[in-house]
Amino acid sequence: MIKTDILIIGAGPTGLFAVFEAGLLQLKCHIIDALPQPGGQCAEIYPKKPIYDIPGFPEILAGDLVDNLMQQIAPFQPGFTLGEQATTIDQQEDGTFVVTTNKGTKHQAPVVAIAGGLGSFEPRKPLLDNLAIYEDKGVEYMIKDPEKYRNKRVLLAGGGDSALDWTVFLANVAEEVTLVHRRNEFRGALDSVEKVQELKNQGKVRLITPAEITAIGGKDQLEWASVRREGAKGEVEEFKLDIDHFIPLFGLSPKLGPIANWGLEIEKNAIKVDNTLDYQTNLPGIYAIGDVNTYPGKLKLILCGFHEATLMCQSAYRRIHPNKRYVLKYTTVGGIQGFDGSKKEAPKAVVKAIV
Amino acid sequence: MIKTDILIIGAGPTGLFAVFEAGLLQLKCHIIDALPQPGGQCAEIYPKKPIYDIPGFPEILAGDLVDNLMQQIAPFQPGFTLGEQATTIDQQEDGTFVVTTNKGTKHQAPVVAIAGGLGSFEPRKPLLDNLAIYEDKGVEYMIKDPEKYRNKRVLLAGGGDSALDWTVFLANVAEEVTLVHRRNEFRGALDSVEKVQELKNQGKVRLITPAEITAIGGKDQLEWASVRREGAKGEVEEFKLDIDHFIPLFGLSPKLGPIANWGLEIEKNAIKVDNTLDYQTNLPGIYAIGDVNTYPGKLKLILCGFHEATLMCQSAYRRIHPNKRYVLKYTTVGGIQGFDGSKKEAPKAVVKAIV
Ligand SMILES: Cc1cc2nc3c(=O)[nH]c(=O)nc-3n(C[C@H](O)[C@H](O)[C@H](O)COP(=O)(O)OP(=O)(O)OC[C@H]3O[C@@H](n4cnc5c(N)ncnc54)[C@H](O)[C@@H]3O)c2cc1C
Ligand SMILES: Cc1cc2nc3c(=O)[nH]c(=O)nc-3n(C[C@H](O)[C@H](O)[C@H](O)COP(=O)(O)OP(=O)(O)OC[C@H]3O[C@@H](n4cnc5c(N)ncnc54)[C@H](O)[C@@H]3O)c2cc1C
Repeated sequence: MIKTDILIIGAGPTGLFAVFEAGLLQLKCHIIDALPQPGGQCAEIYPKKPIYDIPGFPEILAGDLVDNLMQQIAPFQPGFTLGEQATTIDQQEDGTFVVTTNKGTKHQAPVVAIAGGLGSFEPRKPLLDNLAIYEDKGVEYMIKDPEKYRNKRVLLAGGGDSALDWTVFLANVAEEVTLVHRRNEFRGALDSVEKVQELKNQGKVRLITPAEITAIGGKDQLEWASVRREGAKGEVEEFKLDIDHFIPLFGLSPKLGPIANWGLEIEKNAIKVDNTLDYQTNLPGIYAIGDVNTYPGKLKLILCGFHEATLMCQSAYRRIHPNKRYVLKYTTVGGIQGFDGSKKEAPKAVVKAIV
Repeated sequence: MIKTDILIIGAGPTGLFAVFEAGLLQLKCHIIDALPQPGGQCAEIYPKKPIYDIPGFPEILAGDLVDNLMQQIAPFQPGFTLGEQATTIDQQEDGTFVVTTNKGTKHQAPVVAIAGGLGSFEPRKPLLDNLAIYEDKGVEYMIKDPEKYRNKRVLLAGGGDSALDWTVFLANVAEEVTLVHRRNEFRGALDSVEKVQELKNQGKVRLITPAEITAIGGKDQLEWASVRREGAKGEVEEFKLDIDHFIPLFGLSPKLGPIANWGLEIEKNAIKVDNTLDYQTNLPGIYAIGDVNTYPGKLKLILCGFHEATLMCQSAYRRIHPNKRYVLKYTTVGGIQGFDGSKKEAPKAVVKAIV
């Protein structure tokens, strides 16, 4: 059982920043995310695109914003359960909550902050009869640890940025990389398309287009895939590839998912919260912040999630420490005391005679 | 008469960021501030100190945050009335507001956003009988344009960062710089204290401590000041200095000031707003955002001002364009269209065959 003060569901910008604000109040956080990496939509959908409306940044790449947030919260040592979806919540007799993931990991905390964005990202899957049998036995929809593919024969499918970028990355790791896409044209950053073209020219990756995977098989583990390719004149070719891994990268789409059944008031596919005070849901002790919540005038913007996370932490503090009085201290004045023993503070003014 | 869409009172971080959010909605802004420079508390009180809780910045100097915000809003070309205090507001028959400053400058807008922080900064003044007579005739409490002092004889008084920093700056501009302080010890950044010491050693500035100004005089303009200095053994020396300018830098303290008499609901020295929707005050069309407002759970933090400014602009848009429907567009997707004709946008994905 993982225990913490505030259990955060969702490692998007809102969930990440909540760790910082909690840390200022000396509260510890643990974050669960269905994705293998932190950053939510910013990391999964548009890491290389600029955002223009983060206050103080005339322009920042979404991926850089996530990196900055990770650096900002590092002193507060958040725990992470990544690549797992929070599926159930149970309130204990002592009022604390136990949240369990699809992989069975259990987390306990007096406060739960749902920062689930548009929902947990679930992969779009190809239509293959026996796909489920090979899941985690050679079929993966996200790449959690690229080392897993070292010296393996990897088949990727897809035509967007993920497919292109992982092809480039795995070309240096895997024994053999094959990329199948149903069109000749790829859609992605110019740079990524050009790199794949170059790797193809050098014979470092194999491209099969326009083509589709029509079947997969193997004994206990995935061993082969069948590829159907259409030639320029409409002639069809079908052949088998020996592979260790098949990674269809057809995009991830967010689904509110299991959270919708937690007894929370839902409106417009989002969780209703009390925006007059602390972004708490109808269940005391459970908050919803960022894109996942709704209230009159709600804007699904990153900067709004930051504010909501901050007010939520104040309320969580009062719930966890009902008898302590907290007085807000500016970070400039009080500095930052990390849980790792680190300390940041403004250089002090000197009092010094001039003679 | 200066006309604009949203008239903002206060050029602190909240007022500045409001210009950006208004610009995204194609609304123009004009800002009034009592201080000669934008940035509010960040610029006036702690420009060289780090802030740790601006989301995405593990650390940023308050002055740099202001610079960044100025750069971020530049495409939306805000107007500025600086060094003037907004003193009165009158609603016209057509529903628009006219705001007049202490210098008589008039501004008209359908929406007024008060981002006045802790109030307008007013100087602490020395106790000298005839001080008021010489105000703007040689006596100034803030330095608006350093060029005014070129080749002049300037007397500064004070023992903090402002006094030190302006002494350093004016040493290269003025004909003569004298700094008077009632103690031998100065309180400020080590670097600033050391620079003044160096300038003194080089004979470039004159320091008189521990000393006080006891009288000032002159015909139409300020011509002299009387200095009373106490020697090491308690012996007292009093003498006259011929000067063109006397600039007492004893700190600025914020006062809610005239805004308190505008008919707005005031609570705890701040303006009550409707935080359930848009941070509007009890007077429709007048909003209060940032440190200047109060509502249940209010935190006087910069990041909260950013959120409030954003929601305020949405409401202002509906007030100004009651019949237009606005659909939020991500900056990443829609880019930024400056009023100066500039355009920023994310590089588009390419669709390209790999052959
Ligand atoms: C193309 C694009 C451009 C954008 N441009 C801008 C912009 O310019 N400015 C701006 O402010 N915003 C922009 N946005 C929106 C912005 O990305 C979101 O507002 C922001 O990501 C919301 O942050 P969040 O932390 O609330 O949620 P998210 O970033 O959505 O993160 C939520 C996380 O929660 C996880 N999760 C959800 N449910 C579960 C569960 N049950 N178990 C485990 N994990 C779960 C998800 O996997 C996800 O990682 C843009 C969005 C897109 C797609
Ligand atoms: C030493 C110190 C350290 C701080 N550290 C932090 C920190 O670490 N993190 C954080 O989030 N916050 C911090 N703060 C607080 C932060 O600076 C404020 O929350 C922020 O400045 C508020 O911004 P604002 O735009 O609402 O108001 P302000 O910055 O106060 O600006 C208001 C402006 O309005 C002007 N004004 C008011 N009335 C009038 C009028 N009638 N006419 C003309 N002009 C008027 C004033 O002159 C002023 O320039 C700190 C503050 C101080 C003093």
